[in-house]
Amino acid sequence: MYALYYAPGAASLVVHWLLIELGLEHELRRVDMQAREQKSAEYLALNPNGVIPTLIVDGRPHYEAAALAMYLVDRHPQAGFAPALDDPQRAEYAQWMFNLVSTLQAPLRLWWYPWDLQADDAAVRAGAQAQIETACARFEVQLAQRGPYLLGERLSAADFYLTMLMRWSRNLPKPAHDWPHLAEYARRMKARPSFKTLYEREGLTEWA
Amino acid sequence: MYALYYAPGAASLVVHWLLIELGLEHELRRVDMQAREQKSAEYLALNPNGVIPTLIVDGRPHYEAAALAMYLVDRHPQAGFAPALDDPQRAEYAQWMFNLVSTLQAPLRLWWYPWDLQADDAAVRAGAQAQIETACARFEVQLAQRGPYLLGERLSAADFYLTMLMRWSRNLPKPAHDWPHLAEYARRMKARPSFKTLYEREGLTEWA
Ligand SMILES: N[C@@H](CCC(=O)N[C@@H](CS)C(=O)NCC(=O)O)C(=O)O
Ligand SMILES: N[C@@H](CCC(=O)N[C@@H](CS)C(=O)NCC(=O)O)C(=O)O
Repeated sequence: MYALYYAPGAASLVVHWLLIELGLEHELRRVDMQAREQKSAEYLALNPNGVIPTLIVDGRPHYEAAALAMYLVDRHPQAGFAPALDDPQRAEYAQWMFNLVSTLQAPLRLWWYPWDLQADDAAVRAGAQAQIETACARFEVQLAQRGPYLLGERLSAADFYLTMLMRWSRNLPKPAHDWPHLAEYARRMKARPSFKTLYEREGLTEWA
Repeated sequence: MYALYYAPGAASLVVHWLLIELGLEHELRRVDMQAREQKSAEYLALNPNGVIPTLIVDGRPHYEAAALAMYLVDRHPQAGFAPALDDPQRAEYAQWMFNLVSTLQAPLRLWWYPWDLQADDAAVRAGAQAQIETACARFEVQLAQRGPYLLGERLSAADFYLTMLMRWSRNLPKPAHDWPHLAEYARRMKARPSFKTLYEREGLTEWA
């Protein structure tokens, strides 16, 4: 049994989506970000970083969305969302998971929370935006040359992750779906029945 | 056979260190960062991000230091540097790998390359420094309460990673080794015979 601390559309989304895709029993525990519940003593005891998500696994709290995604698909291999450890695509799979975090999630976080750096917010946002666009252009090339998924024909946890990050860019001056292969990719991911369930359960409507 | 594109002390260090620890045959290919060789067309064909490291695995290039570290220790389980997929510590292990990237490597990169953001360099550095110190304080608590390693008694790839990141902070106003448990931890990691070999091969002397 899993329990997920989430907020609609937050980094918990990829974990929630995979729980649905994998058909795993889970409980949802909503964290009120408006009320800054993620910084409450109770939540910090679960996740000292004070961010969402946290996943309770066998009674113990774990965090970092990408780690949780990798963990779930490794532990429940039935859907084939992760190449096995001895699969030739394993190195590439791990590469994408970390590359998404370094080149896309990190600047997206800066764009959404420029004040984290306590520098000039507009300048930080502009810098983050340039990094996001550079990353999008690279993923566009990858999908154009070796798609339709990040691992070619094989759908993996990295694709659910990238789709979530694309969603986060929806209000930027140049959102990720402005690149044609990324747009087609997102359309394909959003056509999955699990996406509809996810949106209903999180009460989301934007970027549907 | 592996081939590692590296620069002394760069993010390649953790990969190099693990190659030595695991006793794996490998070739080193030095990238001249002064000459910006990491931005040459030849290197960009291997790693479109234009950063170090890149590891050639069975003839194909892969990148992202943390991904390479995880891949190597999973593929060569003899040293036990990664809990197996069905080990109860696997989720925690993945958590630390991504947490190190998000909370420590990302602000360290900003500190070393503030101009990446094209905002005010001094302000970005100050903001990054605050984030680095927050992260160090959290790792200090973890080691104090559940050490001696990130996974308790079990040494894992995450410890080699954290040690590399600690090294990068050595010239900051408050380096990671200013925290007592982190200092003791680094001393223990640096006492490994492999660290001496690594330093000799990369020609390093600082923070020895
Ligand atoms: N590295 C973390 C970052 C998570 C994160 O930034 N979550 C955001 C929501 S998308 C959050 O909790 N923000 C509230 C805050 O920082 O106080 C992960 O991937 O899980
Ligand atoms: N996310 C990458 C980052 C690697 C990185 O930032 N490498 C630095 C050296 S430590 C680099 O290549 N800097 C040169 C540059 O950015 O041009 C990884 O972990 O492999």
